[in-house]
Amino acid sequence: MKLKPNVETFLGCDCAYEAARMVLFGAPFDSTTSFRPGTRFASKAIRQDSWGLETYSPYQDADILDAGCMDAGDLELCFGDTEGTVAQIQAFYGDILADGKLPLMIGGEHLVTLGAVRAAAERYPELCVIHFDAHTDLRDAYLGAKLSHATVLRRIHELVGDGRIFQFGIRSGEKFEFEFAKEHTTLQKFNLDGLAEALDCIGERPVYFTLDLDILDPSVFPGTGTPEPGGVTFMELLEAVLQVAGKANIVGCDVNELAPNYDPSGASTAVACKVVRELIIALGTK
Amino acid sequence: MKLKPNVETFLGCDCAYEAARMVLFGAPFDSTTSFRPGTRFASKAIRQDSWGLETYSPYQDADILDAGCMDAGDLELCFGDTEGTVAQIQAFYGDILADGKLPLMIGGEHLVTLGAVRAAAERYPELCVIHFDAHTDLRDAYLGAKLSHATVLRRIHELVGDGRIFQFGIRSGEKFEFEFAKEHTTLQKFNLDGLAEALDCIGERPVYFTLDLDILDPSVFPGTGTPEPGGVTFMELLEAVLQVAGKANIVGCDVNELAPNYDPSGASTAVACKVVRELIIALGTK
Amino acid sequence: MKLKPNVETFLGCDCAYEAARMVLFGAPFDSTTSFRPGTRFASKAIRQDSWGLETYSPYQDADILDAGCMDAGDLELCFGDTEGTVAQIQAFYGDILADGKLPLMIGGEHLVTLGAVRAAAERYPELCVIHFDAHTDLRDAYLGAKLSHATVLRRIHELVGDGRIFQFGIRSGEKFEFEFAKEHTTLQKFNLDGLAEALDCIGERPVYFTLDLDILDPSVFPGTGTPEPGGVTFMELLEAVLQVAGKANIVGCDVNELAPNYDPSGASTAVACKVVRELIIALGTK
Amino acid sequence: MKLKPNVETFLGCDCAYEAARMVLFGAPFDSTTSFRPGTRFASKAIRQDSWGLETYSPYQDADILDAGCMDAGDLELCFGDTEGTVAQIQAFYGDILADGKLPLMIGGEHLVTLGAVRAAAERYPELCVIHFDAHTDLRDAYLGAKLSHATVLRRIHELVGDGRIFQFGIRSGEKFEFEFAKEHTTLQKFNLDGLAEALDCIGERPVYFTLDLDILDPSVFPGTGTPEPGGVTFMELLEAVLQVAGKANIVGCDVNELAPNYDPSGASTAVACKVVRELIIALGTK
Amino acid sequence: MKLKPNVETFLGCDCAYEAARMVLFGAPFDSTTSFRPGTRFASKAIRQDSWGLETYSPYQDADILDAGCMDAGDLELCFGDTEGTVAQIQAFYGDILADGKLPLMIGGEHLVTLGAVRAAAERYPELCVIHFDAHTDLRDAYLGAKLSHATVLRRIHELVGDGRIFQFGIRSGEKFEFEFAKEHTTLQKFNLDGLAEALDCIGERPVYFTLDLDILDPSVFPGTGTPEPGGVTFMELLEAVLQVAGKANIVGCDVNELAPNYDPSGASTAVACKVVRELIIALGTK
Amino acid sequence: MKLKPNVETFLGCDCAYEAARMVLFGAPFDSTTSFRPGTRFASKAIRQDSWGLETYSPYQDADILDAGCMDAGDLELCFGDTEGTVAQIQAFYGDILADGKLPLMIGGEHLVTLGAVRAAAERYPELCVIHFDAHTDLRDAYLGAKLSHATVLRRIHELVGDGRIFQFGIRSGEKFEFEFAKEHTTLQKFNLDGLAEALDCIGERPVYFTLDLDILDPSVFPGTGTPEPGGVTFMELLEAVLQVAGKANIVGCDVNELAPNYDPSGASTAVACKVVRELIIALGTK
Repeated sequence: MKLKPNVETFLGCDCAYEAARMVLFGAPFDSTTSFRPGTRFASKAIRQDSWGLETYSPYQDADILDAGCMDAGDLELCFGDTEGTVAQIQAFYGDILADGKLPLMIGGEHLVTLGAVRAAAERYPELCVIHFDAHTDLRDAYLGAKLSHATVLRRIHELVGDGRIFQFGIRSGEKFEFEFAKEHTTLQKFNLDGLAEALDCIGERPVYFTLDLDILDPSVFPGTGTPEPGGVTFMELLEAVLQVAGKANIVGCDVNELAPNYDPSGASTAVACKVVRELIIALGTK
Repeated sequence: MKLKPNVETFLGCDCAYEAARMVLFGAPFDSTTSFRPGTRFASKAIRQDSWGLETYSPYQDADILDAGCMDAGDLELCFGDTEGTVAQIQAFYGDILADGKLPLMIGGEHLVTLGAVRAAAERYPELCVIHFDAHTDLRDAYLGAKLSHATVLRRIHELVGDGRIFQFGIRSGEKFEFEFAKEHTTLQKFNLDGLAEALDCIGERPVYFTLDLDILDPSVFPGTGTPEPGGVTFMELLEAVLQVAGKANIVGCDVNELAPNYDPSGASTAVACKVVRELIIALGTK
Repeated sequence: MKLKPNVETFLGCDCAYEAARMVLFGAPFDSTTSFRPGTRFASKAIRQDSWGLETYSPYQDADILDAGCMDAGDLELCFGDTEGTVAQIQAFYGDILADGKLPLMIGGEHLVTLGAVRAAAERYPELCVIHFDAHTDLRDAYLGAKLSHATVLRRIHELVGDGRIFQFGIRSGEKFEFEFAKEHTTLQKFNLDGLAEALDCIGERPVYFTLDLDILDPSVFPGTGTPEPGGVTFMELLEAVLQVAGKANIVGCDVNELAPNYDPSGASTAVACKVVRELIIALGTK
Repeated sequence: MKLKPNVETFLGCDCAYEAARMVLFGAPFDSTTSFRPGTRFASKAIRQDSWGLETYSPYQDADILDAGCMDAGDLELCFGDTEGTVAQIQAFYGDILADGKLPLMIGGEHLVTLGAVRAAAERYPELCVIHFDAHTDLRDAYLGAKLSHATVLRRIHELVGDGRIFQFGIRSGEKFEFEFAKEHTTLQKFNLDGLAEALDCIGERPVYFTLDLDILDPSVFPGTGTPEPGGVTFMELLEAVLQVAGKANIVGCDVNELAPNYDPSGASTAVACKVVRELIIALGTK
Repeated sequence: MKLKPNVETFLGCDCAYEAARMVLFGAPFDSTTSFRPGTRFASKAIRQDSWGLETYSPYQDADILDAGCMDAGDLELCFGDTEGTVAQIQAFYGDILADGKLPLMIGGEHLVTLGAVRAAAERYPELCVIHFDAHTDLRDAYLGAKLSHATVLRRIHELVGDGRIFQFGIRSGEKFEFEFAKEHTTLQKFNLDGLAEALDCIGERPVYFTLDLDILDPSVFPGTGTPEPGGVTFMELLEAVLQVAGKANIVGCDVNELAPNYDPSGASTAVACKVVRELIIALGTK
Repeated sequence: MKLKPNVETFLGCDCAYEAARMVLFGAPFDSTTSFRPGTRFASKAIRQDSWGLETYSPYQDADILDAGCMDAGDLELCFGDTEGTVAQIQAFYGDILADGKLPLMIGGEHLVTLGAVRAAAERYPELCVIHFDAHTDLRDAYLGAKLSHATVLRRIHELVGDGRIFQFGIRSGEKFEFEFAKEHTTLQKFNLDGLAEALDCIGERPVYFTLDLDILDPSVFPGTGTPEPGGVTFMELLEAVLQVAGKANIVGCDVNELAPNYDPSGASTAVACKVVRELIIALGTK
């Protein structure tokens, strides 16, 4: 008998690295999460629960198996070592970019995005950032720490500068964060209005797309560390994701802040799985 | 003292069988469920949690106690014996039909519907099927098995033939299932649009109505084996159910795929209870 | 070293009593709850989970720290002693009113409202009541008991009389409760339509505002004893709350029926926290 | 077809009342529970989960189907009406005793025992009480209330007097409760030592046996309102129960304080089911 | 960059098949489970939670990485197809045996053992069976079905005959099962007494060792479908497992009946992980 | 009316700081936890659930209200900032020591102990350490990090040197950790044997006592990040704790690694509460 090792992938994404156009990987890190940890379990959960999902999308009439995606598993990150983790993500993300492939990182808390954007901004000086989230994430420091889920967009602003960050769905933050946004980013409160205009404004410039799933209303997505009522519906998010994927010149992306264990029904993980499937199909088959 | 045995019914549905116009019963079976089992607990859960619901419907200004419904308890089915279970349901469902009563079966996984439709199709050769679901359920076989929750509508198609199956809310399936539907059934993707037209088309023909509750969005109904985001709201479903019950000549029906333990809040069971109450009132008092 | 005691408050509401314009307190009592108990845990839960919420509201562009609110902790109530509990709440609520402050009570089951309304009605003979709820709560007795979560609005009607109670969102009750409402209260079934008219009708008269959070759809708020599908969305509720707080002459209020343990995701508690934050900001900063 | 109503019993205990030697019934009441409610769900849970248990006991080589036991279902008690509930239990328990049958009541919180003991003490003036528990339950009042789970043994002492109460397993109480016990009851701290001596001392006098399952260590029985570490093992309890049932002249008994929802594994309910099975077999077949 | 696929193994058991002395694999099947399903999730759970365990055993002063074990992943079994599943396991188990390796199967429900024993008995006509369990599993049929978790030892008896089956820890069954055991097997009630004698009696004959983890007390192992109080402790089981592994000529084995989701603490999965680790070390390094 | 702020303490420990002999405080930090986070919730949980516990200990016949203990609440620590957190704990612990009081810290993960021992070792150069745990915690680094829950005893060894650390209950670690222990510490595998000898050996030297609650068997204490089967019982731990508190010259202590949310029954939190109560009574009233 010949037995092969037990390979676990998201929804059959088992392309060889060399042949892959897209590379999905997990960044299981949640050490700076201040309220409720647990996003470290996200990437394993979406792999496991992707068994409940079909590979075919009736929304796009296309199949993820045609998207040329490899699931490369999870990075082994050191909990408690915040600086080291961001650097490790930056290096890995950069390597995939250097190989001409499109990386899709599964968080983890939102801070993991910093490593990825550092890699992308290094490669693409014109980089714009599209940011879906419930929270501004624009603090300068959190309890004295510069690296935190609550400061990640502020750090990214330092990398890309004014006018390059487009934020949607924001409904939580300190007053000074909203004021910072008024001067330095394009921020849409509460919903996804203005997305078409933002995409027009961005044009052909390279885009990093960071999707914090807590933009969704907690009724749809309770499995997250800091549920913030008043968010968008699943269909609103799906349409926006397809719009971004269809129009923007995406060079890097991530989907983050699923904390699967807070939702024992598995509905939140199912939402994450479906969003990731649609994003991979949209980016990998266009 | 005189003490009577401890009778447990759904929401006071304690008509004697002879006097009943409708008969509710449970079919606790989930052996073919491929992802997450647990629908076997549905019928007991809705009986128990119906204590939290009133018998009166402000939607229909009518009371379930006037609907002439008997709750006959659960069938004792043999887990793992798929053929035997379908046959046992067929026999029981047929007996109720033969007595001129309207059966309402509480699943269980969706395969239980096959036994019921076999009984109904035998009695009503013109039988049409209205199918609310997130999934096509149109595979020919699943891992080699012909009897499965994933093949049940295909088996039903073999019984009733082309043009008799009307599917709504479908948002998951393999590509070839959607293609099969294009040729053989009427399939409405994602929502309940076109229901009025379908009811017109069916006219006075006898109808079996099978309601897979996962047509609902998982935000409303997370307590199911395979939550599929992007479904309808509770009010959309309720209106559609009342429309079907009001217009169609229903000769048999079922409500299935509640897996109550995945939703520890009980909200999913409350949804199922309310849908069943409204369906019984609509069918039993018209 | 100087160490101070460990003071726990809702979202930093740590005004001294003397300086406070508003006083928040908990009434952890659920002894008459007939279906599923657990609202006793609500006030502690919202204090604890308010750490996940910002003090600033982007909806009102205002901060709860400017609202002059003191969190006075919880009353120590005797479970099983229903009469005594209502009396104890009445006395405490009355003392706050006598000091010229606006009390906001966190239930507990809905019966706690009776103590508060007794105190308010004594002080304000013209008192009107705005009641958001899924349930009529208009029974005269429940299993023989006059004091019950299911009878609280009936008891309140005895205090304030016809035409003073305005009910919204109601979608559950016995037929005779809806009939009682037709004669004695203004009852809006299912939703919040007619709120503006009610506020006009009330005018400058003093208002007690009782908010049973199960007016929300269970998808938004599953963490409650008796989830009743078909309710309003979070944004619909938020807008209505701001409308009431903005227009009505509120002299007393409560937010009740959160049973946090039924929603392990914490989303329901987050909803309650946010509603309470917005209500305090709206009332305390206007 | 002939269909009978859906009768639910504990482990097949479906004797007719007239023929029964023992009568099991539930007293779902937990309104005075001060810490965590939920014992109201116990009787339904043990009925439902008794499906996982065999009717035959390899410990006693006997079968519950030979014990002549009827499961009479649950009393409908009014939550919040403490006096009324105790009176209702007393009347029902008394009626069963008057019919010459042995009642076994499933709590509910421990206060339900008071109603049963009142009935038994009225009939048997020589009544002794064997009390297994983690807690003394000997307060005179709790927050001013005379009727409480924390005062039930004190109330019982008022009925039966000094020297008639034998307490085992006690490991929690105020200092004054232990001092009260020294003068008025026989109290064994921590374990079941001295049980044989107590049984000898009681001799042929009639005995009420009240078994608070929290005598068990929380590792064995976490599903209770107030888990108190340091209790006995399952086998220690089982042996003690069989000893009591074998030697004492039991005229009434109860098993209480299962709060099944705190133990999602179902192990606590399984423990309760097995203890109740063994008790019924021991009493019903001797 | 070179990226390898994402291989998931139990506790680093990543030997190549050709080099392996032992082969671990999962048989995720629970279709005949009559009470509470969920053992299908066991093999994935122990792989995932083995991250919390060290590879080194202080009990045996040895490391699993020296045991020459390959984790071959899970069989893809068809839920609802009972016959086919048993046949598929038989074929796979037989292939590993034919390659001269020792298979360790992770259930799944206990019925999966039948496939493995069929393969082993075919190869080793002198096969004896050591059976640790809470339940006899000796019914001839269950609701008419010959293939069931409740009949698996009876089917195995038909394969190996009288005097070859040694059962330990048994504390649940119908009376006729215990009577069958008296004539045909060696059955030790309640505990592990007599194990040394059984091992002596078996001597050098080939042994299949089937370990149903519900032999453990539910306090130790609540995560199983049918918790049966009164079982052995973890240390008693561990010592017995090491005794069997040290003395018996084991040619095949399995560990079954973990249903991880019933124990949200993960303690049951940790118990299973540790038992499997110790068994692999004991068998693979001796 | 005069209303005081809402002070929350563990079991009524509300001494003023100046008058207190002991100071309890929480160190909610779990950023380096590699497997399952959640110990950050421990201190709040034991405060809240201490309502289910009496202040009087029947084991010691003494009351915690006589122990002169102040609950100072929780430190506000920065998740993700490992160095800063340890330093902050060191400073705070040192301040309490400097005021001549005995600090009892509630973790958090085990790394928090390092800050406390640094403070104690600075003050008491002869410091010995008694360490109860399932894990050696003797790695030099974990994924490159020197500061980790897995390295804390190694760091402590660097502070106090050979022969000063006494470890009990250890049943998990890499081989090299056990070898390190052989040379540098006194390590008792699996249980608490040898404790009396260790206490004799330590004599009057100052002792820091660090109690990782996962020394307990997971049946008793499942609510922890890394449950390790094979631990001690509650009574074994309680006796050992009282022995240590009675004999050793304790100058500092902590109780850590409760992760309350993994045990929804609350039994683990009850265990922690009771251990902390007994420790405070033993130290504060001797």
